[in-house]
Amino acid sequence: MALDYKKELEVAAKNMIFVHEPDLLIKMILRTIVQKVEVSHAGILLHHQDEDNKDAYILTVSRGPLGLKIPAGFVRLDTDNSLIRFFRERQDKQLFNYEAIVYDEASVCLEKDISDALKQILKETLYQMEIFEADVSIPSYFRKELLGILLLGKKNDNTKFEREELDFFIALSSNVAMAIRNAQLFKELGLELNKKRRLFIHTTIALAAAIDAKDHYTHGHTARVTNLSLLLAQRLIQKDKKRFDAQLLENLHIAALLHDIGKIGIPEAILNKNGPLDDDEKKKMQEHPLVGVTILQPIKELGETISGVKYHHERYDGLGYPEGLKGNQIPLLASIISLADAFDAMTTDRPYRRALSKEEAKVEIERQSGKQFNPEMADVFIELCEEGKI
Amino acid sequence: MALDYKKELEVAAKNMIFVHEPDLLIKMILRTIVQKVEVSHAGILLHHQDEDNKDAYILTVSRGPLGLKIPAGFVRLDTDNSLIRFFRERQDKQLFNYEAIVYDEASVCLEKDISDALKQILKETLYQMEIFEADVSIPSYFRKELLGILLLGKKNDNTKFEREELDFFIALSSNVAMAIRNAQLFKELGLELNKKRRLFIHTTIALAAAIDAKDHYTHGHTARVTNLSLLLAQRLIQKDKKRFDAQLLENLHIAALLHDIGKIGIPEAILNKNGPLDDDEKKKMQEHPLVGVTILQPIKELGETISGVKYHHERYDGLGYPEGLKGNQIPLLASIISLADAFDAMTTDRPYRRALSKEEAKVEIERQSGKQFNPEMADVFIELCEEGKI
Repeated sequence: MALDYKKELEVAAKNMIFVHEPDLLIKMILRTIVQKVEVSHAGILLHHQDEDNKDAYILTVSRGPLGLKIPAGFVRLDTDNSLIRFFRERQDKQLFNYEAIVYDEASVCLEKDISDALKQILKETLYQMEIFEADVSIPSYFRKELLGILLLGKKNDNTKFEREELDFFIALSSNVAMAIRNAQLFKELGLELNKKRRLFIHTTIALAAAIDAKDHYTHGHTARVTNLSLLLAQRLIQKDKKRFDAQLLENLHIAALLHDIGKIGIPEAILNKNGPLDDDEKKKMQEHPLVGVTILQPIKELGETISGVKYHHERYDGLGYPEGLKGNQIPLLASIISLADAFDAMTTDRPYRRALSKEEAKVEIERQSGKQFNPEMADVFIELCEEGKI
Repeated sequence: MALDYKKELEVAAKNMIFVHEPDLLIKMILRTIVQKVEVSHAGILLHHQDEDNKDAYILTVSRGPLGLKIPAGFVRLDTDNSLIRFFRERQDKQLFNYEAIVYDEASVCLEKDISDALKQILKETLYQMEIFEADVSIPSYFRKELLGILLLGKKNDNTKFEREELDFFIALSSNVAMAIRNAQLFKELGLELNKKRRLFIHTTIALAAAIDAKDHYTHGHTARVTNLSLLLAQRLIQKDKKRFDAQLLENLHIAALLHDIGKIGIPEAILNKNGPLDDDEKKKMQEHPLVGVTILQPIKELGETISGVKYHHERYDGLGYPEGLKGNQIPLLASIISLADAFDAMTTDRPYRRALSKEEAKVEIERQSGKQFNPEMADVFIELCEEGKI
C-alpha cells in the first residue's frame, strides 16, 4: 500500500515546531491524522508532571465516537496503569520487533508461551486499549522517558494497519511528542515571563502609590497621571502607528508610574505645607525630577524610560526645569507625562487654590498649547476631551 | 550506496529540538555531519534579522580547512549576495528537480541554453561556493522564508554525493534550520525573561534604598539585611537542600528588600527622632510591618513572600509583634530576616546608644537563641561568624 498521507503528515509535523500552544497543537495533530489516515478517531496520552513531581498521562481525543464521550483532559492515567507501565517498562521488547501494540497481534501473543506476569500486564493493557477503542498504541520516547502514547482507532475502510504504516507512525509519534514537549516548554517560559512582567508592574504601582501617599495633597495622583498618559499615547499611536516604537506604551507606563518618585527626597514639611511655597522651598521641590533620576539611574534596564521622569517639568517654550529644554528637544515620554501631570494638578484642590473644573482646565491647556505644552499633545488632549474620553 | 549515517543523523536531528542554545546547536550539528558523513567540512548560513529589520545570513563553519580560516559568525552575507539571492528567489526551480546546488552539475548548466540573467547569477553563485569550498549547497525554508543554507565540503573518499544522499540532506537541512530557529526563539524568550527579572529586582532595590534613605539612622540598612539574609539562607540550603523550596532564595531576596517598606508610612519626625521613642511613637513605629503588608497586598504575584515582611519582628518566644507568633509558627522567611535585621540594628549607631562590635553582637545573638531568635538561625549565624564570613 502506498502511504498517500505520508508526505502531508511529515510536512504538518515539521511545521508543528512553531506552534507554541500545546493544546492547540495536540488538536491540530489529531485532526490531521484522522483526516489524512482516515481512522475513526485518534488520541494522545501525554506525559504530565504534577506540581508535586508525580508523573501522569493525560488523554486528548479527536472528534469521533470516543471524543464525544471523553472531553479533552478528562482522562488521567497514573503510572501504575497497565498501558502506561507496559511502555514505561518496555515490555514490548520481549514480544515484538517494533515499538507499538497492534491489538490483534498482541491478542495472539496471549496464547504464546510467555510468563504469567507478562501475560497479566498484556491482558490489562489490551483491556485498556478496548476502553479507548484503540486498534494501535504507539509510544514515543525522549531519551529513556515515555513522553506520550499515540492511539489510533479503526481505519474507516476496515483494513488493518500494515507494517510500513506502523513504522511511519512510530517515527511520526516521536516527532509529535517532541513538538508537544517543545510547545509546553515555550508555554511555561511564556507564563513565567508574564508573571515577572506583572510582578514588576504591580510592585512599581504599589511602591509609587505608597510614595504618593506621603504627599497629602496629591492622593491618587500617580495612578491618574499614568492612566491619562496612556490614553494620550494610545490616541497618538492610533493616528500614526509607524511613527512610534513598539515599546512606547510599556515604557510610558513605567515612566508615568515613577515620574514623581523623587518626591521621596522632599521633606514632609514642604510636601504638606498648608500654603504657597517660598523660594527656597520651591527650589527644593523642583529638585524632585533629578532626585528621581538619581534613584532610578542604577536600573540599567530602564534605559530611555528615565527621560520621562527627568524631563516631565520641561516646557515647550523652554521655560521649564531642570534643563530648560525646548520644543522637540523634550523627549516624547516627558511631553506626554507633562501634560497629564499638569491636568491632574489643575483639577485637584491645593492648599492655596481651588481645583479647576475639567472645562476650565481644558481652556487653560488650549491656551498653553505651544507655550507650556507640545501642541501635538495639546491637540490630542482636546480631541479626547471633546469625545468625552477625559 | 547505503546511507549508513542516516539513522544516526536522524536521531541526532530529533534530539536537537531540546538544545536551546543556538550557537551550541549549530556546532553540534556541523560536528555530527562532518563525523558521520565524512566530509572535509560543513557550514551553515543562517538567517539573521538585525535590529533595524535588515535580513542577513551568518556563516558558521565546522573545524576543517575552511574553519581555520573563518571564525564562527565572521562571514555575513547580505540579501544581494548571489548565493542568497539564488535560493531566496528560488531560481533553482528552473534548473533542477530538487532544491540543492551540486557544484559540478550546476557548472554543466552554464553551458545549457538559459537566460543571460540566470547564467550570470548562477556563475556568481558558483563563485561564492568556491570561496566556501562547498561541493553542495542545500537551502531550507520555513513556509516561503529562506531560513538557512547547509554547505557541504568534499567527501573524504572523493566520491560524489549521490541523489539519495542529496534527498536525505534536503530533508535534514530543513529539520536543522527549524531546530535552530526554535532554539533562537527560546533564547530570545529566555533573554527577555532575564531582563524582566533584573528590571524587577533592580527597581525594587532602588525604591527600597530610596525609602531607606528617609530614615537617617539606617542608611544602607536594607542592602545589608538583604545580603546577610541571603548568606544565612545559602548556608541553610547547603546543609539540607531537600528541605527548602527552589524559590527560597528568590523569595527571600524580595522579602528582605521590602521588609521595611512600611516605614514610608511613619512620619519623618518619629523616624529621625534624636533620642528614644515614647510609647505612642513606639506604637506608631511598630505599625511598619502591617503598613508594609497593606502596600504589598495588591501584588498578587508576591504570594508567600509577604510573610517575610509581615512577621520580621516576631520573636521565637512569642513576645514579638504584630501577632505574637511563636517558634515554628513564624514563617521561614521572617525568621531569617528577623535575625539579619536585629544584627544590623545592633551593629549600627543609634541616637541613644553606640553600635555594638561584631563580637558583642554575636554574644547577644547566642544569648537570644531560642528567645528572640529561632535557634537554627542563630546556630547558622554563629557558624558563619566563626568562619569569618560575617
